[in-house]
Amino acid sequence: MKNTFGTSLTVTLFGESHGEAIGAILDGLAPGIPVEEEYLRHRLTLRRPAGAISTARREADEFRILSGVFEGRTTGTPLCILIPNTAAHSADYAAARALARPGHADYTAFCKYHGFEDYRGGGHFSGRLTAALVAAGALVQSALAACGIRIGTHVLRCGGVPDRPFSEGAALAGEIDVLDARAFGVLDEVAGERMIAAVTAAAAEGDSVGGVTETAVVGVPAGVGEPWFDALESTLSHILFSVPAVKGVEFGDGFDLAGLRGSEANDPFRLDGGRVVTASNHNGGINGGITNGMPIRFRCAVKPTPSIFREQQTVDFLANEEATLTLRGRHDPAVVHRARVVIDSVTALALADALVLRFGTDWLGGGR
Amino acid sequence: MKNTFGTSLTVTLFGESHGEAIGAILDGLAPGIPVEEEYLRHRLTLRRPAGAISTARREADEFRILSGVFEGRTTGTPLCILIPNTAAHSADYAAARALARPGHADYTAFCKYHGFEDYRGGGHFSGRLTAALVAAGALVQSALAACGIRIGTHVLRCGGVPDRPFSEGAALAGEIDVLDARAFGVLDEVAGERMIAAVTAAAAEGDSVGGVTETAVVGVPAGVGEPWFDALESTLSHILFSVPAVKGVEFGDGFDLAGLRGSEANDPFRLDGGRVVTASNHNGGINGGITNGMPIRFRCAVKPTPSIFREQQTVDFLANEEATLTLRGRHDPAVVHRARVVIDSVTALALADALVLRFGTDWLGGGR
Amino acid sequence: MKNTFGTSLTVTLFGESHGEAIGAILDGLAPGIPVEEEYLRHRLTLRRPAGAISTARREADEFRILSGVFEGRTTGTPLCILIPNTAAHSADYAAARALARPGHADYTAFCKYHGFEDYRGGGHFSGRLTAALVAAGALVQSALAACGIRIGTHVLRCGGVPDRPFSEGAALAGEIDVLDARAFGVLDEVAGERMIAAVTAAAAEGDSVGGVTETAVVGVPAGVGEPWFDALESTLSHILFSVPAVKGVEFGDGFDLAGLRGSEANDPFRLDGGRVVTASNHNGGINGGITNGMPIRFRCAVKPTPSIFREQQTVDFLANEEATLTLRGRHDPAVVHRARVVIDSVTALALADALVLRFGTDWLGGGR
Amino acid sequence: MKNTFGTSLTVTLFGESHGEAIGAILDGLAPGIPVEEEYLRHRLTLRRPAGAISTARREADEFRILSGVFEGRTTGTPLCILIPNTAAHSADYAAARALARPGHADYTAFCKYHGFEDYRGGGHFSGRLTAALVAAGALVQSALAACGIRIGTHVLRCGGVPDRPFSEGAALAGEIDVLDARAFGVLDEVAGERMIAAVTAAAAEGDSVGGVTETAVVGVPAGVGEPWFDALESTLSHILFSVPAVKGVEFGDGFDLAGLRGSEANDPFRLDGGRVVTASNHNGGINGGITNGMPIRFRCAVKPTPSIFREQQTVDFLANEEATLTLRGRHDPAVVHRARVVIDSVTALALADALVLRFGTDWLGGGR
Repeated sequence: MKNTFGTSLTVTLFGESHGEAIGAILDGLAPGIPVEEEYLRHRLTLRRPAGAISTARREADEFRILSGVFEGRTTGTPLCILIPNTAAHSADYAAARALARPGHADYTAFCKYHGFEDYRGGGHFSGRLTAALVAAGALVQSALAACGIRIGTHVLRCGGVPDRPFSEGAALAGEIDVLDARAFGVLDEVAGERMIAAVTAAAAEGDSVGGVTETAVVGVPAGVGEPWFDALESTLSHILFSVPAVKGVEFGDGFDLAGLRGSEANDPFRLDGGRVVTASNHNGGINGGITNGMPIRFRCAVKPTPSIFREQQTVDFLANEEATLTLRGRHDPAVVHRARVVIDSVTALALADALVLRFGTDWLGGGR
Repeated sequence: MKNTFGTSLTVTLFGESHGEAIGAILDGLAPGIPVEEEYLRHRLTLRRPAGAISTARREADEFRILSGVFEGRTTGTPLCILIPNTAAHSADYAAARALARPGHADYTAFCKYHGFEDYRGGGHFSGRLTAALVAAGALVQSALAACGIRIGTHVLRCGGVPDRPFSEGAALAGEIDVLDARAFGVLDEVAGERMIAAVTAAAAEGDSVGGVTETAVVGVPAGVGEPWFDALESTLSHILFSVPAVKGVEFGDGFDLAGLRGSEANDPFRLDGGRVVTASNHNGGINGGITNGMPIRFRCAVKPTPSIFREQQTVDFLANEEATLTLRGRHDPAVVHRARVVIDSVTALALADALVLRFGTDWLGGGR
Repeated sequence: MKNTFGTSLTVTLFGESHGEAIGAILDGLAPGIPVEEEYLRHRLTLRRPAGAISTARREADEFRILSGVFEGRTTGTPLCILIPNTAAHSADYAAARALARPGHADYTAFCKYHGFEDYRGGGHFSGRLTAALVAAGALVQSALAACGIRIGTHVLRCGGVPDRPFSEGAALAGEIDVLDARAFGVLDEVAGERMIAAVTAAAAEGDSVGGVTETAVVGVPAGVGEPWFDALESTLSHILFSVPAVKGVEFGDGFDLAGLRGSEANDPFRLDGGRVVTASNHNGGINGGITNGMPIRFRCAVKPTPSIFREQQTVDFLANEEATLTLRGRHDPAVVHRARVVIDSVTALALADALVLRFGTDWLGGGR
Repeated sequence: MKNTFGTSLTVTLFGESHGEAIGAILDGLAPGIPVEEEYLRHRLTLRRPAGAISTARREADEFRILSGVFEGRTTGTPLCILIPNTAAHSADYAAARALARPGHADYTAFCKYHGFEDYRGGGHFSGRLTAALVAAGALVQSALAACGIRIGTHVLRCGGVPDRPFSEGAALAGEIDVLDARAFGVLDEVAGERMIAAVTAAAAEGDSVGGVTETAVVGVPAGVGEPWFDALESTLSHILFSVPAVKGVEFGDGFDLAGLRGSEANDPFRLDGGRVVTASNHNGGINGGITNGMPIRFRCAVKPTPSIFREQQTVDFLANEEATLTLRGRHDPAVVHRARVVIDSVTALALADALVLRFGTDWLGGGR
């Protein structure tokens, strides 16, 4: 449903980069969930551009919860999170209004909205809106955590530099916790330094880099999801591809599975203290669209930021003539390290929806 | 919504592998679409297992359209396609009822359905149900074709053997047409022979192989899709991950984009006879979730069939004890060549839904 | 969503009066619900035209459950109920194809479907499809009954003859049980005889009569429903107005409330053995869209059957000229006594959906 | 979907009576619709309590449009309307926190939200939220008006005093226009004076009155709506029953149809200058769930305000003991004259959704 996602627990997104505010509405939350505003602020800080490798636009991301919270807990009615825009420099964009930035949505927005779109800074398509997703997701993440479910995403590759992958075994939960505290989301901080160097090098050339994220979720019970159209891979990928710049999603070993034989790709079942587990996790914790109780694992491909400072060929779609374009303004030379925070958030939203559909609306409040 | 997909044009799927019948309901079709039963039969033949590399189960796939068609054309009311099951050998499955087949949904179905699931032949999770999707998709494909939109998928890689990729330019439409006529869906028939040999070799070892498909769609106008949650990548991936064995989806250059710089990944705009096009198509015809008028392109990772004939470790989930399992019965040593037909179908369903949401329900009947 | 209703538990309807079959799909059912085919047959018999006051068309309503049931219980996957059409006399309709029957959907179907609609016997608009709703509803009713929830509807007024209303107190549950066993759904059988006489009298004049139904539901826990758009009155009325001929729905005292003062309309709360109850039930068991634990009560206005045997003024919408129409064929001189069975069914579907959204998908199987 | 209504054009509602703000999000609007803020203000003024017969709470209803509008026109992306709360006197409510007000949602909210609900002034259930619906509806009404569709609702009965009903013929459109300009929504202003007197008399006794509204819509083309579950009566009643205090909805002659014979209830078709019309309109412009091009007509029963100033019996649901309650604070002795404005709004929302599903998203912007 356009800017609304979910069935029992829904999120609705609104706002434009250079409008008065952006925001999100969460509906279908269990009543009684503690709203840890400090945690929301922490997650917004993780997402916020910072340091040499991010846009110079600095938004305070001061959010206000306008509804759905009373005396520090969710009421169960729609929760509206509003984040005012304060640092918009609209004049940066007006001059090049009809010059379609390659890799951006300027031209497709024009085709869809016939020129009535707010073109400033990407308008409704701006990555800025992910701040609202992160705030909404953080609230749900803390509720999931109270139910024993933790979500973590790290930058598995950026600018050609690899991080080490998540551990297979018991160390995984600890790694997830570490990531929540880490400003640049890698498991190996040395790799992180090298990534930042690679981004900086590209930025120095007026260019940008992409990357790959890896996500793990622990604590989801077996039996959640649906066959066919609401397969957990379906609903997760649906919201993951909503994250700007994500162009690929793979579960478990994903595209590598295509090169394996069945005998290598299958995850044998065994017992671990009476509990059914799999000896490997090539399928990413999902069989037939339904969780098997193992960690859920997936990776996302994040394309390089399309905003680069080199001259590019394009068209002026109002004049219908070819043109060249050299961007100015404030842009990230990479977004994968910011996207990892958004990916945590949307993962939380999709999982929580699947869980409350299965177990009822009170479940997320601990009411099982 | 579980076994229903779509917003304005919906498909609902039902049935089990060894039940009386499987089927699908299409709702929201424009009235007046000619129903070319011969084309449905053709597409079902393409999907049907055939030859040395497919399961020995042979279903005639004789479909009946129970409703929604009158005097050879769609009425605009729900169209129910029913495909009776005739070749089920249920006794093959009863013995191993509680032995979770690795890589299959037996265990997750048990967790979700508490043992009430129809376990025979995968029940509702069986790839058999894709026959109904193919029939439904074929009907929509022919309607889209009348609107100038054509969809083709080929096996880009199987058992380690690559096919040549789709052409970038004008040859693409012809390649799509060729694929619709080809029993084994490759562009390079020599590559196809080598793939079949690789599958046969794996089968001889009681094993199976996976593969990758590549899909192209031509003729979709610019401006279709939505920002954020109903991004065309989101809705397409949603239904693509519903196809059994699909574990990865990437649009345009997908995961390869993660290794590029922005200057390499961006698709410059230019004019082609007054029409806005892009000089390259790394983004797969979609910017910001919305079509830009270029061919839509994506790839899917299809895991190796989990049904293999080697002994596997597993658990008996009713007895809660470890066990070994050696499958019998009729199983495909590869499904990627069959999945490509299903992928065409679900692509048609998702695209048609996006188009009629945008242009109105009559659009698919040519009523623009 | 057009021919699909519900959020977590959905029903999809298909078929035409003179097509091969009609049917319904239930999706989202809990696994393990016993499927009492005898009860479905019983409910279909209640709905089926019978005796002097019903259409001469006699369908056996032999249903087949094609999927979603295994060893006598629901599997949790989509359940398809198919009811073949066997007694269609299509030739009755072809002659008057373009003569819009007043009060029917012929003309509006033509406007929507541009002449591609199956016009025979009302096509997809035919009351015949309610047989599928009744079968689906019966299955859900038996599951609800196992959870302590019972639904009953009687003909409160027909052809100007009143039945006595439902009791306020403890007798209500017994009255609901009586209705389930009664061929003509009234509480006062003498009133029923007089209604039948009134219908017969109208039929003798080639005319038809309407009526009012009254429904009561006992056993629904307090706290089910939503504020605003998914108020239980909203979702119930949504599906109630889907029942052909229903033109009015009122909850509790409904339109009579408009003439009362607040001091008369409010239902005072009191305790009954420690349980919160209301001393009266003018609001029909729903406050603010949410159940309060009292019986849910509503009435539906059912218009007289539009098929009458008197000459009527109309237009030929293909020739675009005025015309007169004298119907032949088989038609009911009243449908309110049949509608009461359908109303039970759709009430069950809407309530079950609200309950499983609230308490989780297993709830309907007793899995609380 | 809980606090979201619609399929292609959706509205999402949020906020509480005594929270920081209330608001609504419209998604799926065509781009380019002029946003006439003056008209929104006008409609909010019509809804706002005023004069002797309304609550003493006076909200300025100063709305802000936070997104989705650029240079005075809709962008096509989500439009968020925010209305801050400024006049809340929360202390009025805290004392009686657990005393369930009869006829209100206090007790049902407690059952659903377990005591976490914001109980002040009805919280999320407050009629205050209808201000957001009115603002959203006004925007859609002006877009519909530009497409030739006009909606009007008057108070047909209040406190026992009748207004004259809408005209059948050509005068109807003018009557709709008159109502839009009239502070108290009646056709016969003398009747309006008498209604106000009746309300005042009830208020003097600490009591309240209910009423009935009548709505007419002109200009909707034939062929809009769906058979079965998305019958226009279904979708309209769904949102109408979301309006607080509405307990009955009837289309055309509604409950009166139940007492007619078919020969009286059927609307004969005839030609009017080559256009198919009906000679009468007992069916309210809808046959088989689909518009027939005649005015759409329906009535709503609005119960008397449950807030009265007489002592009432109730329970303290936290202490679980019986109690008496005497309300203080600011309450309307009638809401039917305010509800008529809300009914116009929600009618516009439901109709616009049906129209853009049928004709495409651009239709509402005049893009047919």
